[in-house]
Amino acid sequence: MSEEKNDIFEAVFNPKSVAVVGASSNVSKGGHRRFVSILENYKGKLYPINPKEDEVAGIKAYASVLDVPEDLDQVVISIPSGGVPGVMEECVKKGVKIVTVFTSGFSESGDEGRILESEIVDIAHRGDTRVVGPNCIGVYCPYSGLSFYPTLPKEEGDVAFISQSGGLAMAFVQTGTLYNLGYSRVISFGNAADLDCTDYFEYLTDDPKTEIVGAYLEGVKDGRRFTKVIHELARKKPLIIWKVGRTEVGARAISSHTGSLAGEDRIWDGLFKQHGVVRVNSFDEMLDTVALFKFAPSVGPRIAIITIGGGAGVATADICAGIGLEIATFSSHTSDELKKVVPAAGTSVKNPVDLAATALNPSAMRKVMELVSADESVDTIMTLGLPDATMGLFVRELKRFKGDKPLIVIAPISSEASIKAHRTISKGNIPVYTSEERAAKAISNVVWYNSKFGRYF
Amino acid sequence: MSEEKNDIFEAVFNPKSVAVVGASSNVSKGGHRRFVSILENYKGKLYPINPKEDEVAGIKAYASVLDVPEDLDQVVISIPSGGVPGVMEECVKKGVKIVTVFTSGFSESGDEGRILESEIVDIAHRGDTRVVGPNCIGVYCPYSGLSFYPTLPKEEGDVAFISQSGGLAMAFVQTGTLYNLGYSRVISFGNAADLDCTDYFEYLTDDPKTEIVGAYLEGVKDGRRFTKVIHELARKKPLIIWKVGRTEVGARAISSHTGSLAGEDRIWDGLFKQHGVVRVNSFDEMLDTVALFKFAPSVGPRIAIITIGGGAGVATADICAGIGLEIATFSSHTSDELKKVVPAAGTSVKNPVDLAATALNPSAMRKVMELVSADESVDTIMTLGLPDATMGLFVRELKRFKGDKPLIVIAPISSEASIKAHRTISKGNIPVYTSEERAAKAISNVVWYNSKFGRYF
Repeated sequence: MSEEKNDIFEAVFNPKSVAVVGASSNVSKGGHRRFVSILENYKGKLYPINPKEDEVAGIKAYASVLDVPEDLDQVVISIPSGGVPGVMEECVKKGVKIVTVFTSGFSESGDEGRILESEIVDIAHRGDTRVVGPNCIGVYCPYSGLSFYPTLPKEEGDVAFISQSGGLAMAFVQTGTLYNLGYSRVISFGNAADLDCTDYFEYLTDDPKTEIVGAYLEGVKDGRRFTKVIHELARKKPLIIWKVGRTEVGARAISSHTGSLAGEDRIWDGLFKQHGVVRVNSFDEMLDTVALFKFAPSVGPRIAIITIGGGAGVATADICAGIGLEIATFSSHTSDELKKVVPAAGTSVKNPVDLAATALNPSAMRKVMELVSADESVDTIMTLGLPDATMGLFVRELKRFKGDKPLIVIAPISSEASIKAHRTISKGNIPVYTSEERAAKAISNVVWYNSKFGRYF
Repeated sequence: MSEEKNDIFEAVFNPKSVAVVGASSNVSKGGHRRFVSILENYKGKLYPINPKEDEVAGIKAYASVLDVPEDLDQVVISIPSGGVPGVMEECVKKGVKIVTVFTSGFSESGDEGRILESEIVDIAHRGDTRVVGPNCIGVYCPYSGLSFYPTLPKEEGDVAFISQSGGLAMAFVQTGTLYNLGYSRVISFGNAADLDCTDYFEYLTDDPKTEIVGAYLEGVKDGRRFTKVIHELARKKPLIIWKVGRTEVGARAISSHTGSLAGEDRIWDGLFKQHGVVRVNSFDEMLDTVALFKFAPSVGPRIAIITIGGGAGVATADICAGIGLEIATFSSHTSDELKKVVPAAGTSVKNPVDLAATALNPSAMRKVMELVSADESVDTIMTLGLPDATMGLFVRELKRFKGDKPLIVIAPISSEASIKAHRTISKGNIPVYTSEERAAKAISNVVWYNSKFGRYF
C-alpha cells in the first residue's frame, strides 16, 4: 500500500487530532454521546465544535472547524443532514484528512438523500478529504482510544471488524469481549459513499496490528477491485465475511438500510469459495469462527469427543458427522490406557469417551484429555456435558492440561455461574461455545480455510 | 389408559414411598447423591437401604427392602450391576411396583450386560414389578418432590421431558429454568429394558398435568405401537422429539450409550412429518421450541421485525425468509402512523422497522410495537438489537405492551446483565432468544405444527 493511502487510514484509526461537529452538553443529544465516547480514552487532541456552546464536558468549544487553532486529522459530523455540505466545505478548506459522517438521511432514504450524498463526496474530493459513512457510527480502536460507544474495553487486540452496520459492530465488540477477543480496528462505515470495504480490506492486508479480519457487508461498489483485494487479504490473514441479502426480502431491507445493492447471492458464494474467504451466515457464526481462528487455529477435522453423559456424546457425534467432520478412531494403545482411568460401567472408552462419574475426579479427567491428545488419529478435542456445579473444578484442570492438540469446551449458559465459567475459560485462551453445533460449525469453517491454503498448523 | 396402567405411572412419578438401595453416608458415593437428591423435596416416605449403615442423613437404614415395615411403591437401585438381580428378587417378593435401576453395565456394555439386563426384567415380570432404566437417573417431578439432582427448582409446571440420556434431562431442566419453563414429569429412562418411551408417551397423552411433551430418543423397541401412540399424543399436545443417530457414527455411539438401535433416519423423518411430531436436531432447538409452545403458541408465519440498528433487521429478514417465514407488508395506515412516531432519518418505517434512537424513548418504542401489532398483515412480532444498557427500560415497556400479537425478543448474552434481562423477560412469559436464527427456527417449528393441525390459535 502506498504511503499516501496509508496516511488516509492512519487518519481514520489513529488520528492525532479529532473535532466533533455537533458536540453538545445536552445529554439527550447524539452529539453528546459521540463526544464523550471519544473523550473517554482518546489519546490525541479533541475539539468540540458547536456555535451554541462555550465548552462541552469541560473542553473549550469552537464555532467552526475553521476556528480550531491546529490541523485536524479527522472530523466527526453529528448534525442533521441539511447542514453536512456546509461543514464539509469548511473541512476541505481546513485540509481535514478524514470526515466521518454519522448523520443519516442520505442514499438509504431515497432519491433526495442520494443526491445529497453525491454532493458531500464531490465537495470532499475537490480537496484531499476522504469520507467515512455517512449513516455510520465510525471507529473503535483501542490503540488510539477512539470509540463509538462509552465503556468499551481499553485492551488492544488483533481482530479487525469492518461493518456496514453500527449496531452489529457494537454488538460484536461487546459480545466478543466475553470470549476474550481484543480488537485492532473496528469500523462501522454505513453507506460507504467514498471509502468502501475494499479500501479497508486493502489497508488491513498489511496492517501489522491485525491478524484476523471479520466483516458484515450488505453490498460492494467495485466488484473487480473487491475481488483482487480479498484474494490478497485471505491468503495472508483469515478473512471471515457475513454477506447479507441472500434472500429477496433481505436484499430489499438492505436498500432502506444503507442503500447498497445486494447482488446475486450465488455469485458471492462462488467468489468467496474461490478466494478462500470464510463465509458465515449469522452473528453467532461470525463470533464463533473468529474466536476459533484466534485461540485454536490449528484445529483439524478428526474430532475426539470427551463427555460427561452419553447423550451429549451421541448428539455431538451426529452433529460433527452431519457437518463433514470425522470422529477419530483411537489406537488400541489409547483405549487400553483409557481403561485404566475410566471405570467400565456407565462409561465408554471409545470415541465419544463418556467419563460419567470419573469427571468428578479432576485429575482423572485431565489424564483422559491428555491420553486422547497423544493419539495420532486425533486433531481436535471437544469436551462437553459438565454441569455448572463442577465447572470450577474443570477450569482448574484445563489450566494444567499438557496436551498439544487444540481443546474446545462446550458449556450451555443457564445462569450467572455459567457466564463466569465462560469468561474464565476464555481468559485461559481456550475457545468455549454454548452448543455443539456452534462449535462444530466454527471448526468446519477453520478446517476449510486451513485445507484451502494447505495450512495444518 | 387403563386404571392398572395409570397405577404404574403413579408409582413412577408420584410414589407414596421410595427406598434407595445403596444409599450411603459416604458423600463420594453415587448412592449418597441419589438419596439426598430425593430427600431434599420428596413428600412421601423415604427409606435408605444399606446393610452397612445404621442411618443415612439421619434416617434409619434397613439391610434389605424386605425389612422395610411398609409397602414400597418404588425402589431406586444404585449398587454395582452384579448385585442388581438379587435386589430385584427381593423387590418382587415385596410387591414393589416400580424399580428404577440407576446402575449401568447392562446392554450398553456388550453381550454380557445384555444377558444380565434380560435377567433382571425376567425376574421383575415374574411378579407385577415394572422397571425404569437401567443406566438412567430416573425421575424429576416437582409434584411429588422426587428429583435426580439436588437444587433443582421446586416449582411445578406443565412441560414433560422424556429422555434416554440423564445428562440431557438434567441440562434441559437447568437451562429451561432460565427461560421460565416449569416441569410436570421429567424422566431419564436409559436402556429402556422394560418401560419404553412409548409407555411414557401413552401415559402423558391423558396426563392432566402435562401440556407439552419433549423427548430425547436414541431408539424405540416396538415401532408399530410407538407410531400409534405418537399419533394420538401429537394431536392432543405438542410433541417435540430430538431423535439422534442421524449419521452412521451417531448410530454407533448410541450402541455404546444405551444399547439402542438407531434405525434408518429418513424413516423417522417421514414418520414424524406424517403424524405431526415436531422433530428438532439439537438441545437449543428443543429448548427454544418448547419455550415457544409454552409462551407464544399462536405465532403465525407473517413476521414483523422491530429493530434498533438496520443491520440486525436485514440479517433477520434474511434468516426468516431463508427458513420459509414471510416478512409482513404493512398497510399504508400502519406506515403513516409509524411515521408520526419514528423520525425519518436513519430509520425505516417499512418492515423491518428500524427504531434507531427512537428506542431510547421507551414509550415511543412501545407505541411502535402496538401499531405493528394492530396491523392485520402481521402474525408475530420479533424485536431485536437492544444494547444491554437499555434492556431494563425495554423490559418495563414490554410489561405495558397492549397488543394481541405474540411478541418475541432477541437478545444476545454477553454479560451477567444480559442473563438478568433474559430472566426478567422470561418471567413476564415472553419468549426470549439469544439469536435471530434460534428464534426463527422455533417459530417455523410451531407454525408447522399449527398448520398441520389447522390451529391458528
